[in-house]
Amino acid sequence: MHTISEYQSLFVAYLQKQSYLKEPQNLYNPIDYILSLGGKRMRPVLTLMSAEIFNANYKQALPAAMAVETFHNFSLIHDDIMDDAPLRRGHQTVHEKWNINTGILSGDAMLILAYQYFEQYEPPVFRDLAKLFSKTALEVCEGQQWDVDFETRVGVSINEYLKMIEYKTAVLVAAALKMGAIIAQTSLENAQLIYDFGLNLGIAFQLQDDFLDAFGDPKTFGKQVGGDIIENKKTYLYLTALQNADQTQKQQLLDLYQQNIEDNTQKIALVKQIFTDTKAAENTQNAIALYTQKAFDVLQPLDIEPEKKQILHVFGQNLMKRTV
Amino acid sequence: MHTISEYQSLFVAYLQKQSYLKEPQNLYNPIDYILSLGGKRMRPVLTLMSAEIFNANYKQALPAAMAVETFHNFSLIHDDIMDDAPLRRGHQTVHEKWNINTGILSGDAMLILAYQYFEQYEPPVFRDLAKLFSKTALEVCEGQQWDVDFETRVGVSINEYLKMIEYKTAVLVAAALKMGAIIAQTSLENAQLIYDFGLNLGIAFQLQDDFLDAFGDPKTFGKQVGGDIIENKKTYLYLTALQNADQTQKQQLLDLYQQNIEDNTQKIALVKQIFTDTKAAENTQNAIALYTQKAFDVLQPLDIEPEKKQILHVFGQNLMKRTV
Repeated sequence: MHTISEYQSLFVAYLQKQSYLKEPQNLYNPIDYILSLGGKRMRPVLTLMSAEIFNANYKQALPAAMAVETFHNFSLIHDDIMDDAPLRRGHQTVHEKWNINTGILSGDAMLILAYQYFEQYEPPVFRDLAKLFSKTALEVCEGQQWDVDFETRVGVSINEYLKMIEYKTAVLVAAALKMGAIIAQTSLENAQLIYDFGLNLGIAFQLQDDFLDAFGDPKTFGKQVGGDIIENKKTYLYLTALQNADQTQKQQLLDLYQQNIEDNTQKIALVKQIFTDTKAAENTQNAIALYTQKAFDVLQPLDIEPEKKQILHVFGQNLMKRTV
Repeated sequence: MHTISEYQSLFVAYLQKQSYLKEPQNLYNPIDYILSLGGKRMRPVLTLMSAEIFNANYKQALPAAMAVETFHNFSLIHDDIMDDAPLRRGHQTVHEKWNINTGILSGDAMLILAYQYFEQYEPPVFRDLAKLFSKTALEVCEGQQWDVDFETRVGVSINEYLKMIEYKTAVLVAAALKMGAIIAQTSLENAQLIYDFGLNLGIAFQLQDDFLDAFGDPKTFGKQVGGDIIENKKTYLYLTALQNADQTQKQQLLDLYQQNIEDNTQKIALVKQIFTDTKAAENTQNAIALYTQKAFDVLQPLDIEPEKKQILHVFGQNLMKRTV
């Protein structure tokens, strides 16, 4: 086994050996660009780590890890078009640097390229990987559609929100881990358990993203604190606050979420106050702890050495201790 | 073996059994919509026909045929966004009826759904089909990118144009046929030959599209005659005319292709006159005949019964006799 940062380096070295400097350049340059922007490479690292947890060599998992990372970046390109986002990881988004048509087409090509990485495996493993990948990719699309729908929908329930983040975010984390299990050809039980571990950790991860967006430390949090509040996003914090609020608080929150103003300092402060007063902040932290614990519970029946369970446990703990 | 129109009916019956009336509706309704718009269903019909040419039952080929048709319609949705097209088969395009974001996301989902149809095959066939499909799909993206690039590029060569239509149109026709061969588990030689048959026929088909767009009979041609001329499209006719033209004709053609005017009647007439005078029209018809003949030549070494060669021959002839 390697450390997380070793897996990161090993994966980035592999990624850099992939050449996308092909013709037509207008199709492949944006692919090279987005894949070079960096990021934590969390998903491919999970695939490498999972393969070694189940006693395969990480090298066998590199193509699948590359498929996961390529798919993730495909979804970023298309989501950024849909969200009209100018920046990604501090750089211009693909549709900003080129144009929307390039973003659509290069994204399409990346989705196909992701599938091609599975061709490096033998037929039965190929099919298992591609099947899991298709199921996951479709769920990510469904999650993205729910997310878009929720923007204009009144009365989104907390359960619907949880389903949305499960599909949009958590299933890919879960699938990244399960791919390592498939490549290592461990038991179906183990493969399902590591998937469930990832699914719960993925939900906890996204809830923590929601929490940090409002309550993160501006000194360490990478993005603008309060970004979700400015954009009136219906996050777990917001939906829980609405549910817990009394009539006055509810009206105040709904009014604040009608605002699109220049100076958001006061809006952010007022909304955060409601999040605290209604115990939405506390409830969100509890939900993060709950899903993290669910993930850890899954580790128990997992049939691997105790030291390897410990590695997964520490990984989960570190993910939840993050301030970024 | 069945007739073409029987294969069409058999395919449409299968297509109608697929249910896309799922949640989230905003993702799946557009998929149901585009797949219901009709069309000749040429590609899936080729897959069914090819399977029976190589002695399999067409039923075995239905999922692969559905994958091909789903992919084709995915590419129509995304291309229509890129071309800003309002109509498709006489109905609103998906991004017009819904919006661009819906077009992007529903298209993405269709690309994934196409792959899922291959899961109905055993691992080795699954991998062969998915591999061919990925290669083809990527080439279609490359072809589309060349097409986009050519719009703003000066000095596109005829060879570059032929490569573009090979990728954008012909490879999918070829792959549709080869999938039937893969499912029937015929020899690698046969699979390659039927691919080459489709590739040449696909190029001839697209060149004929170019020809009919200018010289088709308005009474039988479905679309507006002269559409490519109005849009200043660099078709085989146009590029050949430019190559063959004397200085005066060349300048006249270039000037006409700068125009974006209300009444195009005169423009269309003048451009067609140049296409005729420079023998571009004649050359295009010769090229169509050449690629059709290339397709028929491939049938010779094909290891199937003479009656079946005859079926492919008649199919090719009918395709080339069309006026629509």
